[in-house]
Amino acid sequence: MLSYMVNYQTRLDRTFAALVDPTRRAILAQLEGRDSASVSELAEPFVIKLPAVMKHLDVLDDAGLITRSKSGRTVTVRLRPQPLREAMAWLQRYERFWSGRLDGLAAYAENKEAEARGTGR
Amino acid sequence: MLSYMVNYQTRLDRTFAALVDPTRRAILAQLEGRDSASVSELAEPFVIKLPAVMKHLDVLDDAGLITRSKSGRTVTVRLRPQPLREAMAWLQRYERFWSGRLDGLAAYAENKEAEARGTGR
Repeated sequence: MLSYMVNYQTRLDRTFAALVDPTRRAILAQLEGRDSASVSELAEPFVIKLPAVMKHLDVLDDAGLITRSKSGRTVTVRLRPQPLREAMAWLQRYERFWSGRLDGLAAYAENKEAEARGTGR
Repeated sequence: MLSYMVNYQTRLDRTFAALVDPTRRAILAQLEGRDSASVSELAEPFVIKLPAVMKHLDVLDDAGLITRSKSGRTVTVRLRPQPLREAMAWLQRYERFWSGRLDGLAAYAENKEAEARGTGR
C-alpha cells in the first residue's frame, strides 16, 4: 500500500512536470485529435528544430504519456492517456469549489473572495 | 486574443509547475477540506521545517493557487481554485480516451495498446 502511494505520488510528479512545458502540451494536443503521428508530422507545426522536439518526446515517454514504435525509418507516436486520467482525478477533488454543488464552506470561501475583490484587493 | 492565449499558456505553466511537488499537492489537499488554515496548522503534518513550508506557500501564491492574509501574527491561507479549474479543463480534452464514449479512433488506439501488452511489450 505504501509503495503504491509512493509510486502514485511519483507518477503525479512526472505527469505534472511533463505538462509544465507548452510545447509538450501542444504535442499532446496534436495526438488528441488522431490515432497516431510520425515524429516529423508532430514536429511540423513548431518553429523549434527536430532534435528539440525529440527531447520533448523523451520527457513525454519517460512520464508514460506517449508510446513510440519504430518501423523502418518511421517512429510512430501514440498518446497513452492513463497518466492524464490520474492527474485529472487528482484535480477533480477540487471540483466542488467551482461546481454548482458548492457546499457551505466553499460558498463561504467564494463570498470572501468576492468581497476581497470588491474592496480592491 | 494573442495576449490572452499567451497568458493562458503561462498560467498553465505555473499551475502545473506548482503541482509537480508532492508537498505542495499535500498542502492544497489540506486546504480542500477546510475554509482556511494558518501557516502553522498547514505545516503541522509535515516533517520538513516551517521555512521550507513557507517556500512552498510562496510558489503556490505565485501560481495563484492560494491567497494569504495577515492578521496580527497569524497568516491565514485559503485555496484559490480557479487555476486548478483551468488545468482540469485542459485535461478534460482527453476524457474521451477513457470515458465510455470512446470514439472509433480512441477505441482503435486502446485495442492496439491491449495488443501490445498481450505480446509482452
